[in-house]
Amino acid sequence: MSDTVEFATVSPPDEPSRHAAAARHSQLTKPQGSLGRLERLGAWLAACQGQCPPEPLRRARIVVFAGDHGVAANGVSAYPSEVTGQMVTNFRSGGAAINVLAACAGAGVRVVDVAVDAETGDSEFKVRRSSGSIDREDALTEEQTQAALAAGKAIADDEVDAGADLLVAGDMGIGNTTPAAVLVAALTGAEPVAVVGRGTGIDDVTWMRKTAAIRDALRRAKPVTADPVALLRTVAGADLTAMAGFLAQAAVRRTPVVLDGVVSGAAALVAEELAPGARAWWVAGHRSTEPSHHLVLEQLDLEPLLDLGLRLGEGTGAAAAIPLLTMSVRVLAEMATFTDAGISGPATD
Amino acid sequence: MSDTVEFATVSPPDEPSRHAAAARHSQLTKPQGSLGRLERLGAWLAACQGQCPPEPLRRARIVVFAGDHGVAANGVSAYPSEVTGQMVTNFRSGGAAINVLAACAGAGVRVVDVAVDAETGDSEFKVRRSSGSIDREDALTEEQTQAALAAGKAIADDEVDAGADLLVAGDMGIGNTTPAAVLVAALTGAEPVAVVGRGTGIDDVTWMRKTAAIRDALRRAKPVTADPVALLRTVAGADLTAMAGFLAQAAVRRTPVVLDGVVSGAAALVAEELAPGARAWWVAGHRSTEPSHHLVLEQLDLEPLLDLGLRLGEGTGAAAAIPLLTMSVRVLAEMATFTDAGISGPATD
Repeated sequence: MSDTVEFATVSPPDEPSRHAAAARHSQLTKPQGSLGRLERLGAWLAACQGQCPPEPLRRARIVVFAGDHGVAANGVSAYPSEVTGQMVTNFRSGGAAINVLAACAGAGVRVVDVAVDAETGDSEFKVRRSSGSIDREDALTEEQTQAALAAGKAIADDEVDAGADLLVAGDMGIGNTTPAAVLVAALTGAEPVAVVGRGTGIDDVTWMRKTAAIRDALRRAKPVTADPVALLRTVAGADLTAMAGFLAQAAVRRTPVVLDGVVSGAAALVAEELAPGARAWWVAGHRSTEPSHHLVLEQLDLEPLLDLGLRLGEGTGAAAAIPLLTMSVRVLAEMATFTDAGISGPATD
Repeated sequence: MSDTVEFATVSPPDEPSRHAAAARHSQLTKPQGSLGRLERLGAWLAACQGQCPPEPLRRARIVVFAGDHGVAANGVSAYPSEVTGQMVTNFRSGGAAINVLAACAGAGVRVVDVAVDAETGDSEFKVRRSSGSIDREDALTEEQTQAALAAGKAIADDEVDAGADLLVAGDMGIGNTTPAAVLVAALTGAEPVAVVGRGTGIDDVTWMRKTAAIRDALRRAKPVTADPVALLRTVAGADLTAMAGFLAQAAVRRTPVVLDGVVSGAAALVAEELAPGARAWWVAGHRSTEPSHHLVLEQLDLEPLLDLGLRLGEGTGAAAAIPLLTMSVRVLAEMATFTDAGISGPATD
């Protein structure tokens, strides 16, 4: 696993299909532009598929990357690390929020143990147990970093090869908003206090510990900010690194992605560095209440579909938005045109 | 039909069920409050149903109220009035935007000809052909007003008796944003220029004609603003009046409603006057780009679920939000609790 993981060049979505979708929208039986964002969303999906009208979404897949973080031992979360492994079990038995939202959205859920600090019986892509405490040591060795990138890349390939037409990278890991905040600060130039959030719902003392950890980790990140792989090794963690590899490879494979909140957003910032142009394959599912999330959205120039005060992760904010994508595609595929329906167009007085 | 239509007293949603839902949310396997608006939405639906967890939504119904408006002859719309009847045919054959979005949301669509200025073969609830030109004459006679209110009330009763557990009032009618704007201005005290919008997408000259029509109609509305039935008779139209009756009766029948844009919003403002307290049974599906819609939302104290730049009507902005309601209910019904899943709760350090 010590070979360096490379990502092929990302090609952009197909502009002629996007234009064909916009033209088709002007022929459908509704005032021009009256479906607002849904029209642009459908045109983007047509461009991703390279055809207009686009095919209905048949295999949306949510991959939850589970991993623990050494920095959690500093007391940066409201929950103990053992919850990560317990939640993996909960995902498998269908009891978590992402299971329910995915079912509503018609999406499948896959949970991958990348670095859970417990035996979960899933070792195919496991890089290590937990990751280093990033305030004082590297998250990963170079070999582990490459293994995590390779895992994310392989999972994206698996899913696309199995027919996935929409992907989501979800997260589960106690303490994971701490490395996410560090990545966001490192890649956007923000100060620690601008990126530290309440995560699972921490109190003021925990918030101070989290801010200190982010400050220390950010100091360690500064020298390697320009090298995305070194940045992941230094301050991310195996789960976030795998997510970055997954998001980069999804774009290489021309597969649209719905981003979730700050953890998937932080991984996306790095993925855009690993595979420039990847962001053209992403839509932001929602705006999280985590303060650093707006920095991610600004940097990637993405306007979220939903703004409902979610801050759960797991891919829930992305899953909640999937029905809008489904609608945007079916509108293009199924609505009648003015000609089909024999309806008078706008008056030309 | 000359009896006066009365609405029974609206009772509020069940507060103990709302509290039970909030309590249940704190036991589900996620950080407290981390599903944000979805948690409050689920609690509201539990309160509407009077049980926690609430039942999954099984019969969401979208009723599209179709009607023409005499004021359209003034040239206030980008489309000719004949489009209203043509669109009724399009709804029946499943080619309109609302058909597609409703199918995605698992909702049924019913189209009712209340005042289309054409023969549509649907006369059960038809009050008249078109409505008076409200800039210079009453929209309806007193008898027609009562007939339209009775139609809306009967349709709500029909739907609830057939098992509807969620209702939407959609609209179709060339020119209908003009009476909607007049109702909003009359009931919120706004000036004509604050409520006139681009409707289906009108040019500047049409905008000036629309503003003049709204100004003239608003002058006619002023003396009757305090009497909702007289207001409907003077400046609404049969379709908007039926929608107001429908929304009032849905609340009387303790059935939750997703409001759409400015036309359903204008009807909702009047319905709240007809049946005080009705607004507790409503959620705002989206924020329309029509400028007067924010006045509706403010007056009813409703925060929209979506803000996607929609301005189509038909119930589309409400239909787009239905999956969020579905999700909010299923989260309460299907997620595991910390106890069920054997997961550690928040640390209490």
